[in-house]
Amino acid sequence: MVNETQHTCSTSSSSRSDGGSSSGSESSKDNSRCSTPVLDADRHERLREKMRRRQDAGDKWFSLEFFPPRTANAAVNLISRFDRMGAGGPLFIDVTWHPAGDPGSDKETSSMIIANTAVNYCGLETILHMTCCNQTKDDITGHLQKAKRLGLKNIMALRGDPAGEEWEEEADGFNYAVDLVKHIRNEFDDYFDICVAGYPKGHPEAESYEADLRHLKEKVFAGADFIITQLFFRPETFLKFMKDCQAIGITCPIIPGIFPIQGYHSLRQLVKLSKLEVPQEIKDVIEPIKDNDAAIRNYGVELAVSMCQELLDSGMVHGLHFYTLNREVATTEVLKRLGIWKEDPRRPLPWAVSAHPKRRVEDVRPIFWASRPKSYIYRTQEWDDFPNGRWGNSSSPAFGELKDYYLFYLKSKSPREELLKMWGEELTGEESVFEVFTCYITGEPNRNGYKVTCMPWNDDPLATETNLLKDQLEKVNRRGILTINSQPNINGKPSTDPIVGWGPSGGYVFQKAYLEFFTSSEIVTALLKVLKKYELRVNYHIVNVKGQNITNAPDLQPNAVTWGIFPGREIIQPTVVDPVSFLYWKDEAFALWIEQWAKLYEEESPSRMIIQYIHDNYYLVNLVDNDFPLENCLWQVVEDTFELLN
Amino acid sequence: MVNETQHTCSTSSSSRSDGGSSSGSESSKDNSRCSTPVLDADRHERLREKMRRRQDAGDKWFSLEFFPPRTANAAVNLISRFDRMGAGGPLFIDVTWHPAGDPGSDKETSSMIIANTAVNYCGLETILHMTCCNQTKDDITGHLQKAKRLGLKNIMALRGDPAGEEWEEEADGFNYAVDLVKHIRNEFDDYFDICVAGYPKGHPEAESYEADLRHLKEKVFAGADFIITQLFFRPETFLKFMKDCQAIGITCPIIPGIFPIQGYHSLRQLVKLSKLEVPQEIKDVIEPIKDNDAAIRNYGVELAVSMCQELLDSGMVHGLHFYTLNREVATTEVLKRLGIWKEDPRRPLPWAVSAHPKRRVEDVRPIFWASRPKSYIYRTQEWDDFPNGRWGNSSSPAFGELKDYYLFYLKSKSPREELLKMWGEELTGEESVFEVFTCYITGEPNRNGYKVTCMPWNDDPLATETNLLKDQLEKVNRRGILTINSQPNINGKPSTDPIVGWGPSGGYVFQKAYLEFFTSSEIVTALLKVLKKYELRVNYHIVNVKGQNITNAPDLQPNAVTWGIFPGREIIQPTVVDPVSFLYWKDEAFALWIEQWAKLYEEESPSRMIIQYIHDNYYLVNLVDNDFPLENCLWQVVEDTFELLN
Repeated sequence: MVNETQHTCSTSSSSRSDGGSSSGSESSKDNSRCSTPVLDADRHERLREKMRRRQDAGDKWFSLEFFPPRTANAAVNLISRFDRMGAGGPLFIDVTWHPAGDPGSDKETSSMIIANTAVNYCGLETILHMTCCNQTKDDITGHLQKAKRLGLKNIMALRGDPAGEEWEEEADGFNYAVDLVKHIRNEFDDYFDICVAGYPKGHPEAESYEADLRHLKEKVFAGADFIITQLFFRPETFLKFMKDCQAIGITCPIIPGIFPIQGYHSLRQLVKLSKLEVPQEIKDVIEPIKDNDAAIRNYGVELAVSMCQELLDSGMVHGLHFYTLNREVATTEVLKRLGIWKEDPRRPLPWAVSAHPKRRVEDVRPIFWASRPKSYIYRTQEWDDFPNGRWGNSSSPAFGELKDYYLFYLKSKSPREELLKMWGEELTGEESVFEVFTCYITGEPNRNGYKVTCMPWNDDPLATETNLLKDQLEKVNRRGILTINSQPNINGKPSTDPIVGWGPSGGYVFQKAYLEFFTSSEIVTALLKVLKKYELRVNYHIVNVKGQNITNAPDLQPNAVTWGIFPGREIIQPTVVDPVSFLYWKDEAFALWIEQWAKLYEEESPSRMIIQYIHDNYYLVNLVDNDFPLENCLWQVVEDTFELLN
Repeated sequence: MVNETQHTCSTSSSSRSDGGSSSGSESSKDNSRCSTPVLDADRHERLREKMRRRQDAGDKWFSLEFFPPRTANAAVNLISRFDRMGAGGPLFIDVTWHPAGDPGSDKETSSMIIANTAVNYCGLETILHMTCCNQTKDDITGHLQKAKRLGLKNIMALRGDPAGEEWEEEADGFNYAVDLVKHIRNEFDDYFDICVAGYPKGHPEAESYEADLRHLKEKVFAGADFIITQLFFRPETFLKFMKDCQAIGITCPIIPGIFPIQGYHSLRQLVKLSKLEVPQEIKDVIEPIKDNDAAIRNYGVELAVSMCQELLDSGMVHGLHFYTLNREVATTEVLKRLGIWKEDPRRPLPWAVSAHPKRRVEDVRPIFWASRPKSYIYRTQEWDDFPNGRWGNSSSPAFGELKDYYLFYLKSKSPREELLKMWGEELTGEESVFEVFTCYITGEPNRNGYKVTCMPWNDDPLATETNLLKDQLEKVNRRGILTINSQPNINGKPSTDPIVGWGPSGGYVFQKAYLEFFTSSEIVTALLKVLKKYELRVNYHIVNVKGQNITNAPDLQPNAVTWGIFPGREIIQPTVVDPVSFLYWKDEAFALWIEQWAKLYEEESPSRMIIQYIHDNYYLVNLVDNDFPLENCLWQVVEDTFELLN
């Protein structure tokens, strides 16, 4: 009855202080409240609690299954797919376990590392599959410990396919998924949420459908929290299965596995693997169009939509699990047509949060990594505590060094040839570099006709918010103020503002104007003269690659540059300009010139020397206009600087 | 050379990250910065550092000496004098040590407890005098340990007057102040700042002026940080003394002790005690007017002003120490005429900070104790950590119980008879109570012609800020919404605003509108209906004496109701409405009805029963309007409530 008890526990925690509740004097002085504002209730809940809450609220949801890629390049692509499909609001994703692919290793293509990336770097609630047959207890415990260490919180417990035809049960071994469920509960108590597989037509190897249901019940009673089913082709298959489960006392959530047919070949392969039979009515449609991929996909989408709709309409189904086969189009279309793909423009915080449990309270970050959140997460992965409420309260920020520029989740999405087209096959001087920056800002093609869609400091096109500053940014980049980060000032816009809003509704968000750029020492000299006039209003940090540091910031204190005021909450200040972290960031910012740009060219080539020159001689500058209610003065500062130079 | 070394250390810490400084890459990643925004640099400095900083900045300063009072009532008065004279900005005050008055005890008239009150409850930098002769080493160590525990950081080390005429040195005893200085440094290392006494005319018992200078040098070289002199009558006496000190190598600050003549009798007594001679030119003026107190005081003020001016003009004097004799008028006038009495309307935080070193980082408090800061400090005196940055990060708020309503520093300044005149000799019903509240708000005399200048929840007249709400407050109090705390909403006023500003200049302050009141259950019922319309906008907590608690606050989270944004700093949010603390506050708020008001009347008397009825049946309500940029809706909420009742 482990399962039942767990559900009771998990729901009780969310109803402690509802409006209108009354409690006695003693108990109401309860201090066990959250220490951080819950901007996003999801962040504090376990997967099974989220599921329960969505069901209680009548919200329909979906989840997405992926398998680990075969190559490092495919891994890069899969991670961008996580980011894109994550935008539609899956309740979770899951990553399958491929015993042949060294699934628990540190390879960039392993199940473990892909799931780790999804949780930590893409911020997705993630279930890692794990199979148990043909593995020692120690292996399995080792995998689970590693998963826990990496911040994974959910396991899909499977038997897996026995190796060899003549499989025999081992006396003390892991012969069935239920053994793995029991093992997880024994060794890790209630740490993991556990999912198990259900077979709407019965497991192909089971003695009977009924016997298989009994096995499923065993898995649930051994401690599984919910069930995801094998794919099926008719809604009534699932609905019958669900009723049969309930009839024998399975009360946990059962999530139908949906397989949108995406092609003739993939269907045949999957059917062979899963030992399922394709119904005649589907075969009848598919066979005649088997060479027309588009037609099959269209049919698959239609079929999936109508099946999903029927399931949802039954009132018994609250969530749908999609076997994506690592593809985007068909699943996304089904979800959009069902109306459960929800690109929520609201953000709990201005930056994307990580889903690692130890980062749950994190709500302050330095602004410098705004365009490189994965690198920030990487460099802070060893921290035990994360800043919460105030940056200055954090343990000293010991940033890890960024050496692994080529880790797949930190790597540029574009290959070398594309980068050369964007950033110039051959540079003729600092001006060619100014031009690259300018094209990135304007979105206009460069002189060779290529659009510059990314920069070493920013792997994506300009943010919508930065677009607000586009004209001014263009002007200054043309003249050698090479901007890499900026934000406009905001004086109390609603937290639901589509461009600058974040956090719960009913609040107000604020920003101080920020501008960060590389520039020559000549410009810095003029800038410093100009800044004297703005002494109290503008804070600046100016540093070169050697660490020469010029600042007017008092006492190394951080400056909050984004904050929000919400009903019934303490103030949240999610981004700060932190003088200490800036010196760690400058190492990374300067290194990117070399690692991402200079190294595109031959050693000793003029292009490489130009970048090297900039790296060695330019300064990295950041400016904050503290007077957020007034018009941003930073453009005037730059204007004055250019005037002084003329 | 202990002394020299100390000064070097103390000044170096303040110059770490000046604007324009440059440093190497490694050292500049220094993490040893403040974890809290320094709103008030003073809060983090030792007295000797403050002195040094003021001297470097060319700021003239003053300090005030008091002696412990003889009676508990005099203690109450002295504490209000600390509050009033503290407003003029003394660098420190000092409290003399009266060996006959049990100076180290817990009596409310002891030197120790008066100094404790000045530091902790009045927020004043304080020096405790301590004499050593005729005391055992253990006694002295015990006193010093107690002083340290209470948050005292500065000791004036004195010999004191030997008991009996025939005093003989004790071999291992404390025969001179220098022995005490050495003892403090031996036992407490550098914890205390030590002050010693200087005698511009030489100590009356010294063999010679020169011998006395040598003794002074010994005291300084044993570890004293600065010198305060005995009183003198001619500026040249001090200036010569100072030059002589410097000539023999005394380099620490020497502060002249100023005694404004306040009366014939007190002058004669002091002169007798200090064995000083009054110069003939002064005697000549005083003798003829010896029975005219006002004339003598006027002369004393003139004399002090001209002497102080001459000292300041010499360029050798940066601070002046005043022997106040626990009187206010003469010293205040001298200070005002010198232009060094500076009532600074700026506040580092909206509430008065305590000077205990362990409260140095404290920058968040619940709003409930806004008018009872001393009670808040009392109830949190056992805390080891104080909220900093965010209330929710604080250790669980275990508030001490408030039983000691009659501790002199928590007690009402007004005696029982006066309170009866203000609050009614005889109450005739709840309406008489409404009237008292209304008179307190309006400032109009009550029906017996007395002004109500304090209430059980507020010992002072209405705050300037509350005056902004006066008309509305009057209206609602008349009808039984008995307000005890409120603030208007503020949407970004300059931090230098004379009424609502606080914190360093160049910032902006904000507030959410707040209203707290007692009211009947009938009104509460209507109010709750009305509040449904304002559900997302207004947060409420409604509680009765039994702890029945009705709220719509999410997850027991605190709501920030005052915050400030400053150049180069993190956000400060000094006041919150904290649901958990509110339940501790309500115990105190309800108890004050009985302890301060009901107990003025005979037991079983109708007046007492009326207050008891209110105590037993009314609710304490607090309301926050979260929409600070819009017009405060709380008056509309109350208006709607009254309408519903009609």
